[in-house]
Amino acid sequence: MTSSSGLPRLSRRALLGSAGAAGLAVGAVGGALGQQALAAPAAGTGGSTGAALGRATIPFHGPRQAGILQPAQARVQLAAFDLADGAGGTGSRDGLRKLLRQWSATAARLARGEDAPSAENQIARDAGPCSLTVTFGFGASLFDKTGLTDRRPAALAPLPDFPEDAIDRARSDGDLWVQIGADDALVAFHALRVLQRQAAGTATLRWQMAGFGRTPGATPHPMTGRNLMGQVDGTNNPKPGQDGFEEKIFTGGDGWFAGGTYAVVRRIRMLLDNWENLPTDRQERVIGRRKSDGAPLSGGTETTAVDLTARGADGALAVPADAHIRVAAPGSNGGAAMLRRGFSYADGVLADGSPDAGLLFVAFQADPMKGFVPVQRKLARGDGLSRFIRHESSGLYAVPPGAPEGGYVGQALLD
Amino acid sequence: MTSSSGLPRLSRRALLGSAGAAGLAVGAVGGALGQQALAAPAAGTGGSTGAALGRATIPFHGPRQAGILQPAQARVQLAAFDLADGAGGTGSRDGLRKLLRQWSATAARLARGEDAPSAENQIARDAGPCSLTVTFGFGASLFDKTGLTDRRPAALAPLPDFPEDAIDRARSDGDLWVQIGADDALVAFHALRVLQRQAAGTATLRWQMAGFGRTPGATPHPMTGRNLMGQVDGTNNPKPGQDGFEEKIFTGGDGWFAGGTYAVVRRIRMLLDNWENLPTDRQERVIGRRKSDGAPLSGGTETTAVDLTARGADGALAVPADAHIRVAAPGSNGGAAMLRRGFSYADGVLADGSPDAGLLFVAFQADPMKGFVPVQRKLARGDGLSRFIRHESSGLYAVPPGAPEGGYVGQALLD
Ligand code: HEM
Ligand code: HEM
Repeated sequence: MTSSSGLPRLSRRALLGSAGAAGLAVGAVGGALGQQALAAPAAGTGGSTGAALGRATIPFHGPRQAGILQPAQARVQLAAFDLADGAGGTGSRDGLRKLLRQWSATAARLARGEDAPSAENQIARDAGPCSLTVTFGFGASLFDKTGLTDRRPAALAPLPDFPEDAIDRARSDGDLWVQIGADDALVAFHALRVLQRQAAGTATLRWQMAGFGRTPGATPHPMTGRNLMGQVDGTNNPKPGQDGFEEKIFTGGDGWFAGGTYAVVRRIRMLLDNWENLPTDRQERVIGRRKSDGAPLSGGTETTAVDLTARGADGALAVPADAHIRVAAPGSNGGAAMLRRGFSYADGVLADGSPDAGLLFVAFQADPMKGFVPVQRKLARGDGLSRFIRHESSGLYAVPPGAPEGGYVGQALLD
Repeated sequence: MTSSSGLPRLSRRALLGSAGAAGLAVGAVGGALGQQALAAPAAGTGGSTGAALGRATIPFHGPRQAGILQPAQARVQLAAFDLADGAGGTGSRDGLRKLLRQWSATAARLARGEDAPSAENQIARDAGPCSLTVTFGFGASLFDKTGLTDRRPAALAPLPDFPEDAIDRARSDGDLWVQIGADDALVAFHALRVLQRQAAGTATLRWQMAGFGRTPGATPHPMTGRNLMGQVDGTNNPKPGQDGFEEKIFTGGDGWFAGGTYAVVRRIRMLLDNWENLPTDRQERVIGRRKSDGAPLSGGTETTAVDLTARGADGALAVPADAHIRVAAPGSNGGAAMLRRGFSYADGVLADGSPDAGLLFVAFQADPMKGFVPVQRKLARGDGLSRFIRHESSGLYAVPPGAPEGGYVGQALLD
């Protein structure tokens, strides 16, 4: 079997075999919206069969932060924090250092399935770690506030505006970004509350969003997840082990940010009422893939390479000129690549009665100017999907490399 | 072992043994916030081990509607619909009849794990039913709009206002109430979208809220769930099989509503910042139970009967005078009983930075004037917990008995 990039598809064993090198603890990412069943439970902290979901553990420490390469969990909490006013400069740098040390220690502890450090908050008590991951990122504003402007990573500039953007700044940006994933909602919410409490006096919550993907075991076999438009989503993600994967997703060099990555975070609302009025064949032409199984309209199965030149009996392009996968494809964007690891959200109804639901788009890349930005520029102009979505919030964060045992995330910048 | 009511605790086998009579398909409710692992997967639609969560099936048809007696699932969507303007009277009664017939057929189909009736919406395709239940209820306003005022159940009057209520009417009430539970978020959201689409032209969405409980397998063993205050929640719920359970939860008589129940639905925000500032021992005195394991402060384990007369060495009441479990206890309220089956919610942050999180309180009872109303009257005045919560929305719905195979919910009223 070959993947759509034409490379031989790696077996799960092969991917896991390279775990040490790639910093993978528990399987590799398969789809933007999760191939959760790849996550293997860590060896026995006891419990009956059926509790494997609870016991599954993803170590916090390692060369890469957790929550990037692992399959998306069933539940996510995304949040941004702003450093408290006051101190500024060196003063708030001390506070930041202390906070990141405490956050890292707590994230490591909760990832191991140990109880919360404070007894006042026991929301997740009794539950296993449930594949908990906590990922930290730094917004551009953090560097100015802490007098570290000269050490800000080059590409950490505000994202440009795109046509049709409807960005709510109050739910965008922020000094610190936190992504908390877990297969249990209480475990994820608990971790957020604990981190938020620890931030008291140093940083305040700016925005928070909850999202979800498939629950492990919901499908008979592990498979690529679906988004709220019903599409198989994540198929053509770059995969660890593929040629050039590391260079496309993680930064090189030897500064404090070497081995880091940039996270682009966009809350993208789906206009589901309009979408669901479209007959299936037109929905399929918007994306360029079949609804039922995600196979490209140029033929084959989900994992068949897309043939952008293929034409139907009527002479028309099989994958239409404005199909999302044509406009977004790396080949159409000078090889631009990003690792999408999004979640769905559904937050009730808006004043006009339409669902406040869509995609919490999260994408990791070594350089947003070669990843998200050129692709989104093209999508905003020429993507058939644009009519059915609205970008409502936006953030770009420098995600430092992982911390070794005993260390904390951001240490090379702050110590 | 005896339950806290002093009655012998029924084994799971004993409860399941009475399934036919009680209309239980898959185990019995254990806690307000779920003892989800009681749900046994239905026999093999195939799939690998670990996919039991996906395959688990709760039949739609039966003497009781599904989603009342079964353990709370990992995910819920609550929604209310209003009949569309226009027709009114007999005309809208026809529309309602048609809608309920369609909704019931769809709910039954999705509960069996069959694909959605429409191909345009395939959000849950590939996934098993994941213990999907759909429960329908009727608001008081429905009866006037359909010319059925004289058949409105006696107790279906608007709930009274309580001191400290901060009710948002736009997220309260409604002609029709739908409760959708499933162990996978996509499965629950999908069912909601399908029902909403089918309502087009007949009824429009009034409000919608998403909630969650423990994911099956998150804890090593099945146990009572926790709420977002970290308390073990659901311990002292009435249990199927206990003396008087049927009479307290389901209506008697022989009209169209015989065998139905009333659902009280309240969105109750938790003031978590204040709550988490309270030391554990004070948190425990607010509820009257230990944080770690839910044991009453009068001693014993979670399931030990509460002794409201017990005093500590200092002569003070072990369960304080304003403790939630004292004020709410049936004994303090003339035997008032209700089956609580709530879910947590966490919808980001409010304008003031505090979490928009709390409890989607759902309670079923044969008579709200003997269940929720007297208890809430006392709680609003004398409950130590009041300082940490805000009731923000409210609904009361008549939940008809279940439909037999081939029938639909509400048929005895509408045919
Ligand atoms: C709600 C918004 C979006 C939806 C519903 C969506 C959906 C999809 C789907 C169904 C696919 C095909 C399966 C796959 O390969 O994953 C896909 C592919 C892709 N999407 Fe999106 N997408 C959205 C937004 C975006 C955005 C904002 C970007 C980046 C700016 C993006 C970049 C890509 C890329 C790079 C691919 C792979 C194309 C290829 O190489 O075949 N998508 N998307
Ligand atoms: C956010 C709001 C609430 C929280 C956090 C909460 C929490 C709890 C907890 C932890 C218990 C003890 C464990 C148990 O037996 O389930 C309990 C018991 C109980 N609660 Fe609540 N509750 C809330 C609101 C309400 C409301 C609005 C009512 C009804 C008006 C209610 C009625 C009861 C009853 C009847 C009991 C059982 C008392 C007994 O017999 O021991 N609760 N609640």
